[in-house]
Amino acid sequence: MRAVKLGPEGLFYDPAAALPQAGPGEALIRVRLAGICSTDLELIRGYFGFQGILGHEFVGVVEQADDTRWQGKRVVSSINFADEATPEFAQYGREHHPHRRVLGILGCDGCMADYIVVPTANLLEVPSEVSDEAAVFCEPLAAALRIPDQVAVRPSGRAAVVGPGRLGMLIGKVLSLNGCRVTMLARSAKSLALANRWGLHTNLVEEAAPSAFDLVVEATGNAAGWEQAIRLTQPLGTLVMKSTYAAAPQIDMTKLVVDEIRVVGSRCGPFAPALRLLAAGAVDVRALIEGEYPPERAAEAFQHAARKGVRKILLRFA
Amino acid sequence: MRAVKLGPEGLFYDPAAALPQAGPGEALIRVRLAGICSTDLELIRGYFGFQGILGHEFVGVVEQADDTRWQGKRVVSSINFADEATPEFAQYGREHHPHRRVLGILGCDGCMADYIVVPTANLLEVPSEVSDEAAVFCEPLAAALRIPDQVAVRPSGRAAVVGPGRLGMLIGKVLSLNGCRVTMLARSAKSLALANRWGLHTNLVEEAAPSAFDLVVEATGNAAGWEQAIRLTQPLGTLVMKSTYAAAPQIDMTKLVVDEIRVVGSRCGPFAPALRLLAAGAVDVRALIEGEYPPERAAEAFQHAARKGVRKILLRFA
Repeated sequence: MRAVKLGPEGLFYDPAAALPQAGPGEALIRVRLAGICSTDLELIRGYFGFQGILGHEFVGVVEQADDTRWQGKRVVSSINFADEATPEFAQYGREHHPHRRVLGILGCDGCMADYIVVPTANLLEVPSEVSDEAAVFCEPLAAALRIPDQVAVRPSGRAAVVGPGRLGMLIGKVLSLNGCRVTMLARSAKSLALANRWGLHTNLVEEAAPSAFDLVVEATGNAAGWEQAIRLTQPLGTLVMKSTYAAAPQIDMTKLVVDEIRVVGSRCGPFAPALRLLAAGAVDVRALIEGEYPPERAAEAFQHAARKGVRKILLRFA
Repeated sequence: MRAVKLGPEGLFYDPAAALPQAGPGEALIRVRLAGICSTDLELIRGYFGFQGILGHEFVGVVEQADDTRWQGKRVVSSINFADEATPEFAQYGREHHPHRRVLGILGCDGCMADYIVVPTANLLEVPSEVSDEAAVFCEPLAAALRIPDQVAVRPSGRAAVVGPGRLGMLIGKVLSLNGCRVTMLARSAKSLALANRWGLHTNLVEEAAPSAFDLVVEATGNAAGWEQAIRLTQPLGTLVMKSTYAAAPQIDMTKLVVDEIRVVGSRCGPFAPALRLLAAGAVDVRALIEGEYPPERAAEAFQHAARKGVRKILLRFA
């Protein structure tokens, strides 16, 4: 089968990768679409030391599973895999299990291939009203929804998202759903055009007043975003860190402690509400798509995704 | 009057400082005892650029106030002063008012003097059963109590305090009050002796397992403590930053985001419950006292307080 892999020499297209085999409790899935995420770009830079088939955003159809109810179903899958029978599962669940595997990120081949195998416990059926092009956004939309699962998003609050990129836009939209005033912040006016179309407030990050927001989400994907984000957080406010990257920025302990700011790390989120929002058409995820490539042109696709300001690039397998 | 001051040349004793005058809504207080805190030591290093009379921990007796009910009362005072009539007061209160003054820290002379003036709105009467030597701990005990005001301290949780110093010990004791298992962590066994006497668990910080605690308090007062503290915090756990210092340590965004850790800055706390605990004899604060000096020997007192492992040094004014 075709697959997009990360090896010691970097990204490459493998036209003849081994077909995976579904074991007990697993499903073999024919992938239709896969998305390129900022984490994939970080993995290519060596973050986490991952090697294997890349990708953790996809929609596909179940070809084979011992639980035959899944047969032929169009599905998405949450990306953390862990053994439910282990004692750690009760405490940490899938997302934080110390021995978890993570699709295309940690100890597990990803979804940028014609076929993948995932535990059926991670599958969710995609409602018929959700297109493939929308369903492929389920994972990043779930990641955005992790934020209101962790912290109170107040309708009367003032929220800001630093970085209107592929994930930042979803976060801004999600935070605005309950009526909260959300300001998208960027370095250039050009990158705020879609935020304006989506009815979100916008501003240049340098022009935003210090301590202007009670909830700030750092979604730039780079270390410089941290400094801006903490600058913008008001006393007693909350700063959500949504970027994973290899750099270790410095933390201003005086601002953090004296202003009693809460910093919350935020990672994977809930798929079921993401599918409900997609089914309701509440988030126009297709506006984020900027290109679609066959896996044979993966190198070109990744270069496109890495360009400044580019949002979602998809790989089409079927 | 006598005062201990910080000037451009550093700490000095002033035998003839100007007597402060109480205005409307203020009280003139005869100071009995003042405590030296790590923040004072940081101020001497240039943190915050403060100059003037040092000190924010004290107990004293009201000599004069326009509200005559305070006359002759033995009091402590919370340390953030702000105008209640300002619009910012409703949102931020005293502790985070953007134009606040802070006793001996920000825009306001401190309590290491024979007399001080503070707003009567900040005063609390000390119950007769609380000695001066205990009452002078009200401010740091309140700072420790800020933590359970901010985050849930679960009786069935596993908490750790990194740094068994003057503030760290109070934090450890406060966290243990509801039955929570608290481990005090230090670099040397010697500095854990009092923690053992207080019935707290102890361990060397290097020997504590990674991700072993769901609540970790960083109270070392130095940047190295941060790295240890985040190492010890389990996935989904909470890390409370209690130290203020000038250094800006690096933050491992991968651990923070992937383990979804909450970092909470924590500063000043509630005086009323601190007085209740002191009145109940729930915290043996006097065990923390390691020396007492007259203000004339302030330089020596501060050198003593700065020595490794030394806890509370007091200045006696009356």
